[in-house]
Amino acid sequence: MLERRKPIWVKEAIDKVMEHKKRGEVETVSIHDCDERYLASPLIADHDVPPFDRSPYDGFALRARDTKNASREHPLLFEVIDEIGAGQVTLKQLGSMEAVRIMTGAQIPEGADCVIMLELVNERNENGRKLIEIKRQLQPGDNLSFQGEDAQKGTELIGKGVQINPGIKALLATFGYSRVKVGKKPTIGIIATGSELLGPEDELEPGKIRDSNGYMLQSQVLRTGALYKRYENCADDLETLYHALKTALEECDIVITTGGVSVGDFDYMPEIYKRLGAKLLFNKIAMRPGSVTSCAEINGQLLFGLSGNPSACYVGFEFFVKPYIRYWMHSELPYNRFVTGELKADFPKPNPFSRFIRGKLSYEEGKIFAEPVGLDKSGVVTSIAWADCLIVLPGGTRGYQKGDQADIILLEDRQGSGVPWQEKKLSKL
Amino acid sequence: MLERRKPIWVKEAIDKVMEHKKRGEVETVSIHDCDERYLASPLIADHDVPPFDRSPYDGFALRARDTKNASREHPLLFEVIDEIGAGQVTLKQLGSMEAVRIMTGAQIPEGADCVIMLELVNERNENGRKLIEIKRQLQPGDNLSFQGEDAQKGTELIGKGVQINPGIKALLATFGYSRVKVGKKPTIGIIATGSELLGPEDELEPGKIRDSNGYMLQSQVLRTGALYKRYENCADDLETLYHALKTALEECDIVITTGGVSVGDFDYMPEIYKRLGAKLLFNKIAMRPGSVTSCAEINGQLLFGLSGNPSACYVGFEFFVKPYIRYWMHSELPYNRFVTGELKADFPKPNPFSRFIRGKLSYEEGKIFAEPVGLDKSGVVTSIAWADCLIVLPGGTRGYQKGDQADIILLEDRQGSGVPWQEKKLSKL
Repeated sequence: MLERRKPIWVKEAIDKVMEHKKRGEVETVSIHDCDERYLASPLIADHDVPPFDRSPYDGFALRARDTKNASREHPLLFEVIDEIGAGQVTLKQLGSMEAVRIMTGAQIPEGADCVIMLELVNERNENGRKLIEIKRQLQPGDNLSFQGEDAQKGTELIGKGVQINPGIKALLATFGYSRVKVGKKPTIGIIATGSELLGPEDELEPGKIRDSNGYMLQSQVLRTGALYKRYENCADDLETLYHALKTALEECDIVITTGGVSVGDFDYMPEIYKRLGAKLLFNKIAMRPGSVTSCAEINGQLLFGLSGNPSACYVGFEFFVKPYIRYWMHSELPYNRFVTGELKADFPKPNPFSRFIRGKLSYEEGKIFAEPVGLDKSGVVTSIAWADCLIVLPGGTRGYQKGDQADIILLEDRQGSGVPWQEKKLSKL
Repeated sequence: MLERRKPIWVKEAIDKVMEHKKRGEVETVSIHDCDERYLASPLIADHDVPPFDRSPYDGFALRARDTKNASREHPLLFEVIDEIGAGQVTLKQLGSMEAVRIMTGAQIPEGADCVIMLELVNERNENGRKLIEIKRQLQPGDNLSFQGEDAQKGTELIGKGVQINPGIKALLATFGYSRVKVGKKPTIGIIATGSELLGPEDELEPGKIRDSNGYMLQSQVLRTGALYKRYENCADDLETLYHALKTALEECDIVITTGGVSVGDFDYMPEIYKRLGAKLLFNKIAMRPGSVTSCAEINGQLLFGLSGNPSACYVGFEFFVKPYIRYWMHSELPYNRFVTGELKADFPKPNPFSRFIRGKLSYEEGKIFAEPVGLDKSGVVTSIAWADCLIVLPGGTRGYQKGDQADIILLEDRQGSGVPWQEKKLSKL
């Protein structure tokens, strides 16, 4: 009577999703609108940086060989023949015992081979001539930034697939990318199922609760950098659900449902998958929470069936939906980053499946720690709000103690990882 | 002839900025638009969670005492008198040897005190009666989620000043916050000064470079969650700059300039501060890069004068502007988070001032490491793009070796800190 589902490893489920990965379209946006997007082509230097030999300081450009006999006791006098602001160039050729006043960033004049900082000279006027007194020897190249020393024309500075941060935006501006090629944002359809669901504006009714998963998913989609389209909360009713899903598949790039994936009589998702002709990739994963996460493919389009349980829904998105979306947007680091850290609490209860505990990271004296936040029942939505990591307790027959090392999956990280978290040993489940 | 500036500690400079901190206006936004904003009032539970005793599983609700004699050898038969989907309630009173089919999340019927999971019973039909076979004893409360066990009505679940993440958005939805009170986004005026500056769409000209700081600051402002307004790149010309600044002060909440703050003849900012009647808070800080960062106050409004040097500009924003903006937006954790980690490279050169090296974090076996990225000359814009942290080398007479511990300021962190990084020992500079 009850469908028996075969669980698969988290790693296998991620692989099955990513077998269907694809890069979304590329679009060209203004540099003003490129923040946090993923570069769809590498960032190449269109000129040397610096583009010319320049002064990193305010000071005077001169010839090092003229300072050979300068000392505190025997200062030498140079005549200031011109001054160059940033963005200006001098047409004068600098000769023996001559100097040019030069501002930070300005091009070194012809003939000069070093710069002395403004603070280190005395200036004076004599018979209408502007003079400076130099009290030390300089070497050719002193206080110069040489053409191309930061980056040479044609160099790939940032590879494609990297997310645009403030430093990369600065580079884009520097190298003339007034328009930037980035991965287009996919639209993610979000369907919260369950006739018990009310909206946030609704008064509570007996037996009902307000939908939280739909809103949480909106937020997760936005953080991932994609767009979402919400569909009305759908009753647990075969026809309504089927039509909502069909519409969402037509209107969106990727579709997520929450709820309706477990084995109860009122869960119509399996039947709907069948009607849509969808190919089921998996419907049970060896993990808690999130064991009833499912994914199906229909004509190359993915349909994620996340649990109606808030924590399971959250975790299902982070593990399976997020990397798929990030890859679509051209990210080279689509997975959540994970690290190793020390447990700050005991977890005595053994678990057959890998367990992901909502936790809080801390850093002490160069080391990483994690402790659980709040109750860790899967129905407890409050602890998701406080968590910034998932503590991984691998399935097995033993519990865990304070001080044990554990994998920790970062939830508030922006950077991502090129490889997903996975179980260390895969055997037959 | 040259103005002599007195450097102050980073800590002092932050304090001087934050003496002028203020909370911006509060606005009410739709729950759909609240992501990443800061709560301006605490999130209070408007009802118990769960709002009623409910079933965390698909199964059957019954009376524990009726199972007293159940065993594998002597299964007991219960009659299924009703079924309740999520969001439904039964009007039937459950009696002796009766069960009600109940879906995940549904309210426990009157009379029942426990739930048995669907997978653990055999169902059968007999003469039109629906029966289940129970093979184990249950205790009152087994597999029940009790009313209020996650959160009780009236509890403050999230304090004000916390940034809205997906978990908090879920809580807002759960507790009926269809509209959310958040700190209003301030508008930050950005003025890049320097007659050498070209736009990203311009062809390079002799002696000139394209503006990168203005774009970098746009991106930093957006990441901080605020809005920006760009002003035309201003020539290093007193009148133009003065008028741009006056307009920006009228149109924006906070104003940032980049460039024009050092001591060269062409730097008009000091003169402009004077004309505006601005009170200078500081104009030199004991740090590299960023020593010529300045801040002035005029009628309660702050005017940040960041260096024209890209790295100094970047660091100046992170240390001084970001916390001021975040506080304005009602954040309780306005500063950049910092941790301790191990250096992965030598830094032999001693430095009189604290030095902030652009670096890359790594995590190995529970420990935090950091190493410098690229050349660390302050003019090198490429290394900002790759950095995810600043490695702090405190000023002093010695260099640093691989393996030394150092403070590390996180640049890609979303969470922030309630206290700023500061020098460990403050003496007279």
